Amino acid sequence: MPDVNPVHLIAHKRDGQSLDPDDIRGVVQAYTAGDVPDYQMSAFLMATYLNGLNDAEAAALTDAMLHSGRVLDLSDLPGTKVDKHSTGGVGDKVSLILAPIVAACGVPVPMISGRGLGHTGGTLDKLESIPGFRTDLSIEDYRRQLADIGLVLIGQTEEMAPADRKLYALRDVTATVESIPLIAASIMSKKLAEGIDALVLDVKCGRGAFMKTEADARTLAETLTAIGETNGTPTTALMTRMDVPLGRAVGNWPEVAESIACLRGEHADSALMEVTIGLAGEMLALGGVADTPADGRTQAREAIEDGSALDAFRTLVETQDGDPSVVDDPSMRPGADPVADVVAPDHLEGVVTSIDALAIGFAAVDLGAGRRTKEDTVDPTAGIVFERTVGDKVEPGDVIARLYARDASRIPAAQEAVADAFTAGASAPEATSAIIDRYTRDGWSGGSDAASSV
Amino acid sequence: MPDVNPVHLIAHKRDGQSLDPDDIRGVVQAYTAGDVPDYQMSAFLMATYLNGLNDAEAAALTDAMLHSGRVLDLSDLPGTKVDKHSTGGVGDKVSLILAPIVAACGVPVPMISGRGLGHTGGTLDKLESIPGFRTDLSIEDYRRQLADIGLVLIGQTEEMAPADRKLYALRDVTATVESIPLIAASIMSKKLAEGIDALVLDVKCGRGAFMKTEADARTLAETLTAIGETNGTPTTALMTRMDVPLGRAVGNWPEVAESIACLRGEHADSALMEVTIGLAGEMLALGGVADTPADGRTQAREAIEDGSALDAFRTLVETQDGDPSVVDDPSMRPGADPVADVVAPDHLEGVVTSIDALAIGFAAVDLGAGRRTKEDTVDPTAGIVFERTVGDKVEPGDVIARLYARDASRIPAAQEAVADAFTAGASAPEATSAIIDRYTRDGWSGGSDAASSV
Repeated sequence: MPDVNPVHLIAHKRDGQSLDPDDIRGVVQAYTAGDVPDYQMSAFLMATYLNGLNDAEAAALTDAMLHSGRVLDLSDLPGTKVDKHSTGGVGDKVSLILAPIVAACGVPVPMISGRGLGHTGGTLDKLESIPGFRTDLSIEDYRRQLADIGLVLIGQTEEMAPADRKLYALRDVTATVESIPLIAASIMSKKLAEGIDALVLDVKCGRGAFMKTEADARTLAETLTAIGETNGTPTTALMTRMDVPLGRAVGNWPEVAESIACLRGEHADSALMEVTIGLAGEMLALGGVADTPADGRTQAREAIEDGSALDAFRTLVETQDGDPSVVDDPSMRPGADPVADVVAPDHLEGVVTSIDALAIGFAAVDLGAGRRTKEDTVDPTAGIVFERTVGDKVEPGDVIARLYARDASRIPAAQEAVADAFTAGASAPEATSAIIDRYTRDGWSGGSDAASSV
Repeated sequence: MPDVNPVHLIAHKRDGQSLDPDDIRGVVQAYTAGDVPDYQMSAFLMATYLNGLNDAEAAALTDAMLHSGRVLDLSDLPGTKVDKHSTGGVGDKVSLILAPIVAACGVPVPMISGRGLGHTGGTLDKLESIPGFRTDLSIEDYRRQLADIGLVLIGQTEEMAPADRKLYALRDVTATVESIPLIAASIMSKKLAEGIDALVLDVKCGRGAFMKTEADARTLAETLTAIGETNGTPTTALMTRMDVPLGRAVGNWPEVAESIACLRGEHADSALMEVTIGLAGEMLALGGVADTPADGRTQAREAIEDGSALDAFRTLVETQDGDPSVVDDPSMRPGADPVADVVAPDHLEGVVTSIDALAIGFAAVDLGAGRRTKEDTVDPTAGIVFERTVGDKVEPGDVIARLYARDASRIPAAQEAVADAFTAGASAPEATSAIIDRYTRDGWSGGSDAASSV
């Protein structure tokens, strides 16, 4: 590590200069070791927020955070290990469907996931809504399960990327969270610590995503991919729409139930399955079992049709101490019944043209599906299931959604919020692909490959 | 004080928005009270550095720092109390000549000064080179002396503007010092705490100043004046040149000796006296004893000619426990003899066209006249006195300067640095006024009034 002068580095970044990657590594290492104080790091973060990082700087920041803790080595296990990361959306249960599909097709999936953040849900919270399901496996159990069944889904451990946790906590209280290179470095430091061989990214874009504009989503996809490739990890990104919730369910158990239905082949034509199959195609191609993403998508659809993906999910649940009977019959789960309806108000007439994903995300949190403060506990069955979605006909008085919540006092506000999130018009909006575009180190595809042949 | 959310304020300033003055007051008060941590304030300072503060924000920041400590009230003392502040230069002994002139003309001068900073000297260090001179008077003694002799020069007390000290210490280690609104607020919070009725600013511009460009100096003058006027304190700024050291002496006692010579009328035609008389004219006009700055300049010159300014200086020294015999004969001070000469090198032939003020400032510090670290003690007699200045003929072998230092080991490097700071040419540079322009709340004068009739 070079001898770092934090004031000089802050001044250089303040003045818009590029920093030597070794200096970035040095300051992050010194910060993690407690040799650079919070007040210098927060000034550095603000200068970075306002003046940015180039790809080499972002890769060095990622590398320093990655190597601040344990970096798993799965190279002794057979196969090309591939994971997927989503930048977060509303109703985004893709991981629950995708990971079993990919594992069923023979690509090992070691997935380390997070909890809900803001208005978005988290895969860990969803899995834990399955009675008994454990996400706190040790690293040793994680390796063993990956070797045994080719699929494991756990939460991040304290040993991995501690610098990212320390920096994120500081960013959270210094208004430096929403920086694309800082977001990218945070994501990639955690993903690359998993010991994966390749990575597929679902970069969400729109009202219900953290990246509201296509331009920001493109920059994030490019930055994430550049970091992955610099690290020697082949990385492909799909940019997908997140204006409307993905699928019909929002909330932890409601999303698990919908995922099981998808694994049974019940929603093959949905935007949710378009995104899932698109990502599966990329993972299977990167994992070496498909020649092309299109070939991968064909294999993925077959894994749904022949039941092998559902079997993989059932095995996952059973192996991580979850109750497999709720996979066989989701209605068996206690608390799986709706407690209230949302009825279309007078003005909602014609065809549903949009459902505001951001408003729905917050309504689900308010029902108990997410945390308003860090101390909140999650209601595993709370959530919203739509009875009408974009393109469906609607008349005042129709039931447009059903609500789930343990705490009945939360229902009236949620009914109003969900009703307000709907917009109707005279005719259905023009059909659009859920996948906007695809990015690899070779550039943007213009969406043609990913979107045309699902 | 409003309920302040520091993260929201940081985010607003990060996004280039203007803040409510009450919110700025609130965050500074909370920071001073320890309720906002350093790491949030440093992020706020960096956002401010990069996105700036408007005049109302800068005035609110000043007001909050000003009221973080004791604000003196001198309203029970007769007269309009006027002070001068310089943004700092090399050889800038103006205060030592100016304050006695203005006091001798009947305007009370309550001056609270600072120590040397970087390559520039400080009035306190200069005064303390007078044997016995005390600058650590209590506020009560400060008031009493101002009432008795109309002139007092002390250092800042711990009671005044503690928020400025806390913020400055944080800026120093987070690369957020060189921000015009932060510099302006820091200066004005200390000056307005003195209990003055009006203020004259010497905003220096050039190679040896903190503001290197005329554009930055103008912005600083405008910001300082706006803060003063917002506070209800009439404020006038002169923008003056600081490319070449001001006067012939650089160093604490050497500058006191030169100041005494000036008070005796020995350097009436120098740039040093042009600046001093220009500032005196403004102070006397603001202080109500002169109708115009030009009238004030006439009175100031008379105070030199009739000896009343020198008498006022002698009284000041005596009252603050200094040895008045060195005022009567500066050669009596121990250590007042030069220890080495600087000889013109071979290439220095013709007419001196410039002397690099920044290089001279650092050479003086290295001789012992300033502090390289906070722990250094100052050598009161160390310094440089020029035997040749801009416009003088020079030939190789001429003695161009004499050096003073207790520590002989520092001489060789200083000889080289001082010789290197000189440039010669075939002919003298075009004569320029030392005062570039004048700014009041009515705008810039274009330099006409201040420069034409000195």
